[in-house]
Formats: sequence, C-alpha cells, structure tokens
Amino acid sequence: MAEDSMDKPFIVTCTAPVNIAVIKYWGKRNEDLILPINSSLSVTLHQDQLKTTTTVATSRSFQEDRLWLNGKEEDITHPRLQSCLREIRRRARKRHNDGDPDPDTTGLSQKVHICSVNNFPTAAGLASSAAGFACLVYSLAQVFGVDGELSAIARQGSGSACRSMYGGFVQWIMGNRDDGKDSLAHQVEPETHWPQLRILVLVASAERKPIGSTSGMQTSVQTSCLLKHRAESVVPRRMVEMTEAVRRKDFPAFAELTIKDSNQFHATCLDTYPPIFYLNSVSQQVIHLVHRYNKHYGETRVAYSFDAGPNAVIFTLQQHVPEFVRVVQHFFPPDTNGEDFIKGLPVKHAALSEELKQEIGLEPIPRGINYIISTKAGPGPRVVEDPSQHLLSPDGLPKKL
Amino acid sequence: MAEDSMDKPFIVTCTAPVNIAVIKYWGKRNEDLILPINSSLSVTLHQDQLKTTTTVATSRSFQEDRLWLNGKEEDITHPRLQSCLREIRRRARKRHNDGDPDPDTTGLSQKVHICSVNNFPTAAGLASSAAGFACLVYSLAQVFGVDGELSAIARQGSGSACRSMYGGFVQWIMGNRDDGKDSLAHQVEPETHWPQLRILVLVASAERKPIGSTSGMQTSVQTSCLLKHRAESVVPRRMVEMTEAVRRKDFPAFAELTIKDSNQFHATCLDTYPPIFYLNSVSQQVIHLVHRYNKHYGETRVAYSFDAGPNAVIFTLQQHVPEFVRVVQHFFPPDTNGEDFIKGLPVKHAALSEELKQEIGLEPIPRGINYIISTKAGPGPRVVEDPSQHLLSPDGLPKKL
Repeated sequence: MAEDSMDKPFIVTCTAPVNIAVIKYWGKRNEDLILPINSSLSVTLHQDQLKTTTTVATSRSFQEDRLWLNGKEEDITHPRLQSCLREIRRRARKRHNDGDPDPDTTGLSQKVHICSVNNFPTAAGLASSAAGFACLVYSLAQVFGVDGELSAIARQGSGSACRSMYGGFVQWIMGNRDDGKDSLAHQVEPETHWPQLRILVLVASAERKPIGSTSGMQTSVQTSCLLKHRAESVVPRRMVEMTEAVRRKDFPAFAELTIKDSNQFHATCLDTYPPIFYLNSVSQQVIHLVHRYNKHYGETRVAYSFDAGPNAVIFTLQQHVPEFVRVVQHFFPPDTNGEDFIKGLPVKHAALSEELKQEIGLEPIPRGINYIISTKAGPGPRVVEDPSQHLLSPDGLPKKL
Repeated sequence: MAEDSMDKPFIVTCTAPVNIAVIKYWGKRNEDLILPINSSLSVTLHQDQLKTTTTVATSRSFQEDRLWLNGKEEDITHPRLQSCLREIRRRARKRHNDGDPDPDTTGLSQKVHICSVNNFPTAAGLASSAAGFACLVYSLAQVFGVDGELSAIARQGSGSACRSMYGGFVQWIMGNRDDGKDSLAHQVEPETHWPQLRILVLVASAERKPIGSTSGMQTSVQTSCLLKHRAESVVPRRMVEMTEAVRRKDFPAFAELTIKDSNQFHATCLDTYPPIFYLNSVSQQVIHLVHRYNKHYGETRVAYSFDAGPNAVIFTLQQHVPEFVRVVQHFFPPDTNGEDFIKGLPVKHAALSEELKQEIGLEPIPRGINYIISTKAGPGPRVVEDPSQHLLSPDGLPKKL
C-alpha cells in the first residue's frame, strides 16, 4: 500500500434519529453502565425532520482523538464518550483477534476525528444526546467494522440513545444483570407499521434552562418514594399494555397510556426533594387544550408527552393534524402570520369552529409556542453514501468551522 | 313558662379556626360518611387572623331550618349540611332519652336558623369549608346540648373540618370501621406547645378557579396508582415521623416532611387522569424561592405547603419571619409600598442582603402575591359569650343582610 494511500483518512458519515419515549425512562440503577430502574418504549422520529449527522475519520496521520460538535471543538475526554470509544475498539479488537480478515479493522490503532451536527437548533430543547450518541456509535461501528448488537454501546453514552439505534417503535428492556449485557433496545414494530400516526413537536419558549436529566434523575432515585413504586409496580404492566397498543395500532389505548406515563414521570419529578419542574404554564395550557379537545369529540384523538423540558410532543392520526394544528395556532398565537410556524411535513389548512374554540375556552398565550415540527415515525441510523456529505475534509478537519 | 319567653329564640354564637394539613388528606374510601384513604395531620391557625363565626338560633316560632352564609341565604338541603344537622339531633335525642334533664335539649323539635361569616375573603382561596363545618357542628352542639366527641360529626360535613375541632397540632386518624366511628380527630399537642412557630399565608393571584377538591379527589382515587401507594405505604410512616417532629419541636424535620408531603400530594394530582394542576407559576416561584433561601443558609429555615389552590402556606420560626417576608416582597413586588401587603401579626422590618437576593436569583413576578397573612397556631372552637356578637337578631334573622 502506498504511503499516501495509507495516510489518506478512512471516512464514514452516518445519520441517526431522535426518539420520544411514550413509557418514560427516569432513574438509573448503575450510573457508570447507565442501567435503568425500569424498561421504556419510544417512537423513533423521522430523520427528514430531526437528525444528527456524524462523520468519523481514521488515519495514521492523526495525532489524537478529536471531536467537533455543531461547529465547535469539544473535549473528547468526557467519560461517556470515552466509554463508547473504548467499547467499540474493544469489540473491534476482539473481532480482529478472532481472526476476521476484514480490512476495515486495520485502523484499530489509529486515532479518530469525529464531527457531528444536528439539523435542529439545540435551543429547541430536544434531547439531542440520544441522536448524538446513537450516531456516534453507529458511525464508529462502520469505521472499525463492528457489527452485531450496538444498542448496549450507545446506552453507555446516553441511556435513551440505545432506543435511537432502531426505527419505528422501540423498547429498551432494563435487564437484570449487573454487567448490563441484557439491558438492550429491541424494535417492537418498524416505522412502516402505523403509517397514519403523526407527531407534532411543539417547541415552547422556555424562560429558563431546566435542571439536566442526569442530575435530575439521580436526585429522584435518591428521594422519591413514588418513583420506586412506579419503576417496580407500574411500568412493567404498562410496557405490556403499550406494546399491545402499538401492535394493534389502537390509538386511544396508545394515547391514554402515553399521557398517563408522561404525567406520572412529571409527578415523580414533583415528588423529588427538592422538587423538579419541567412543565411550565405553556405546558399546562397544552395539557388542558388536549384534554378539552378530546372531550369535545368524546374520544381520545390527541396525546401529549413531555420530556425533561417544556416542549410538548403531540401524537395524533393523520386526519386530525390540520384541525389540531389550527387549534394550537389559535391558543398560542404566533407573531408571524403562521408561515414559519409549521416546519416539516406539510399540514393542510382546516377550518376551526367557534363551538370548538369556545369549548376549549382557554386564554390564548401569545408566542407561547415558537413553532411546530410536523413529523412521523422513521427509520433507524443510516450510512450516508454520498461522500460530498462528509463533515470532515480529507485532511480530517471539519469542512465548515 | 310565659308564651313570649318560649317564643324567644335560644341563641348561641361560636367561632372556629382554619387548619392547614402538613400531612395531606386526599381521597375518600367512603363518599357518604367521608372516610379518608389515609390519616392526616394539621396545624390549627389562630382565630385572631382567620376564623368563621356562626350563630345558631332555635325557636318554637321558626317554621323551617334556614341558613345564611356570608350575608346570603343558602339552600340548607345540601346533603352534607343535612348530615351534620341530623347527626347532632340524633345525639341530642339519644341523650334526652337517656334521661338527661338538661333544659337546653328541650329545643329538640325546634327548627334552627344558622348564620355564618368568615373574617377572610372567600376570594383568598382558603379552604373555608373546614372552619365552616367545624363552627356549625360546635354551635349546634351547644344549642342542642350535645357534648363528647364532635369531630366525627364535623367530618361528615367536610373531611378536614374534623381537624378544626381542636387547637394546636391535630391528627385525623383514618380508622378502619365501615361505619366511620373510629375516623376521628385528636389533638397531638396544644397551641401553646411550640410558641416560636409562625405561619404566613401567601395569598396568590389566581388566573382561574381550580377544580374543586371533592371532585378532584374522586378522580384521583379512581385513576392515580401513585395515590394508592402513597396512602398505603408512605403516609403511615410519615404520620409517625410528623407526630415525633411536632413533639420534639424539631423544625428541620417538621419542615422537610411538610414540603415533601405537599409535593407528593400535588404529584398524585398530576398522576390523576386527566391531570389536576393546583400549582401555578407563582406557586412554582415560591417553591424555588424557599429551597434557595434554605440553601443559602445551609439549613431548613422555611417550609411551604399548598392545598387545592395556588396559595402558599409558609411555616418558619419567629426569628426568620422579618427577613423571609422581605424576600417574598422582593420577588413578588406588590403595587403598593407594602403597607397593606402584610396583614395579621405585626412583622418587624429587616434588611435584605444583596448576596441573598443574588443567590435566590429569580425573576421577580410583580403582583404575583396579593398579600401575606401573618399568623401562628391557635386554639379550637370557642363559644362567644358577648350577646352583641350574635349574627342573628332576637327575631331569628341576620342582623346585617
């Protein structure tokens, strides 16, 4: 092999999705291995709207591992990043020692350059760490020729990242082992399973940065007696019910469980000492709005779910999207005429009856919601074949800084 | 006995206090008898600041039972009112039949006129039903010559009313019997037990009327799995711990339990389907403020408790009142210069350090709190001896309408 070809970096670019838990993960039984106190279940969002793109390059010429996130070089010594890197290299080495002659594994001793960007603003308050670590692990696995089960590695970067390793409907089984080898994500149904399901992310304007989920869940595990009961006695039953609801495409059952589980998660936050609040007055208004909307129709047409921030994730069926978006726009009047208010999948215009407005009867909160991202369930991580999409140049540095 | 003297009504006036639960009551196991799913513990507030006054008159000349509340005639056929009236008359009749010659009981067949007023605005959002039913039952008992255990009768008017039958620190033992005869209030310690303890009611400006506690707790019992766990597994332990903290006058232990129990009650409201919100953004700000204030001093100097509304009830020790009131005034700046901001027990002026303000570091919410009622623990119901205080004239009609 010529010297220049050996120095030329090996570059892989991948994308990975965001996921939204409908049975929530909150609390670890092992902080280092990121082992949860209960199983969880999520919907993977479509990457056409929300994704992380990561390029990983290896080269003999690289002096050290380096990392750029959203255009800025970051400290790669972060313990959870190191866990992922170490575990991928360990698995690659094992495979190499086992005699696999795949030439990709020759880069084992080489340093990596990693460059990652999100196609959504961090300010949107969407948990970017799940997509980020899923994309990192998936890309590293391509570079080092690691295949097989990858969710356990992604889990060690960020718990919920293991669920972003699959498309569609995904469960993260908590497992029982102390070494975490059985704490893995599995696909329940693929993204094609329930084409009518639609997801709207209502990006709320937050007054202040809420407490981070890592320290938040630590405090909850230490202080909330309701969280312990939830993990041991409530979630196991709900996991079965939710899996069934997804399989049957039973929207009312899916929606009611989603709502109840979101609220129970926030209840355990409130039962934490000191209490943690992620729901602000805008979130409360969304909650009231959804329940009154459903009440108006006498059926559960819309569900909400909130993670560790004030953004609402709305689940509904395709046919209800246009009217519900109008309802949101009415009760959270945006500054603009609404052109930029809806991003993502196009939403048809719909009429809004006076009767419905009156029955909901809430005081509008101007600019309470910045915009809506309209999306649906989507696939898991993907390799980007087009080399023009690499985020790193052949010199191993980011194309745009 | 002359005809005119027989027609002259027999009039009794009593007062009764408000109480604030520090271990919360939420949920009934029997709606008719008002039997709770867990025991609770409260502090009786001093009647110098908050009280209900009730006059009950009986006379041969009265044609029917009548009721005036805060100057307005109300329907006396309300089932819970009727429960109290019926039970008092039953007990009086029993005593009469048992041969007690007390002449007061001769009014047994006579109709009653009841007139009741609160010395605090209903708009303050303080649970007036506890003081109201306690006062009603205590007054009726005087008129009909019923003595002995009265809390079980008050309980049938409004659950928490049974705790307003005693001063100081009061527990309501849930009992086990189906007939509710063992579901009674008992005094843990009298109002003189802990003279340093102070109570501040922060009357919040509410945007909308929250859901009532009667229907709220019904929905919670039906839908919240966390409430069931709380009632069965958390409260029994906390009742023991709280009783001990009160007996020992251990403020940090008392305060932390008070905070945790308030938050857990609101957590079960959030776990209700549809969820119930009593804490608004002002309440959240009070919560953050208290925790940061305590953190600043490295000890738990202040506790909060919220019932089914946004008002905060603050517990602290006498020496911390002046500064804490200043903190509240700073982060909830009132419209006025503060003269009317503090009602009740006088509060000395205190300085407020820049350091403390900065460490709390919240964005002030102008007019978020309407005013503060400064009070302390106080005695149970009392007979008012001065006839000029009767709310009913000798003709049996309210003095002021």
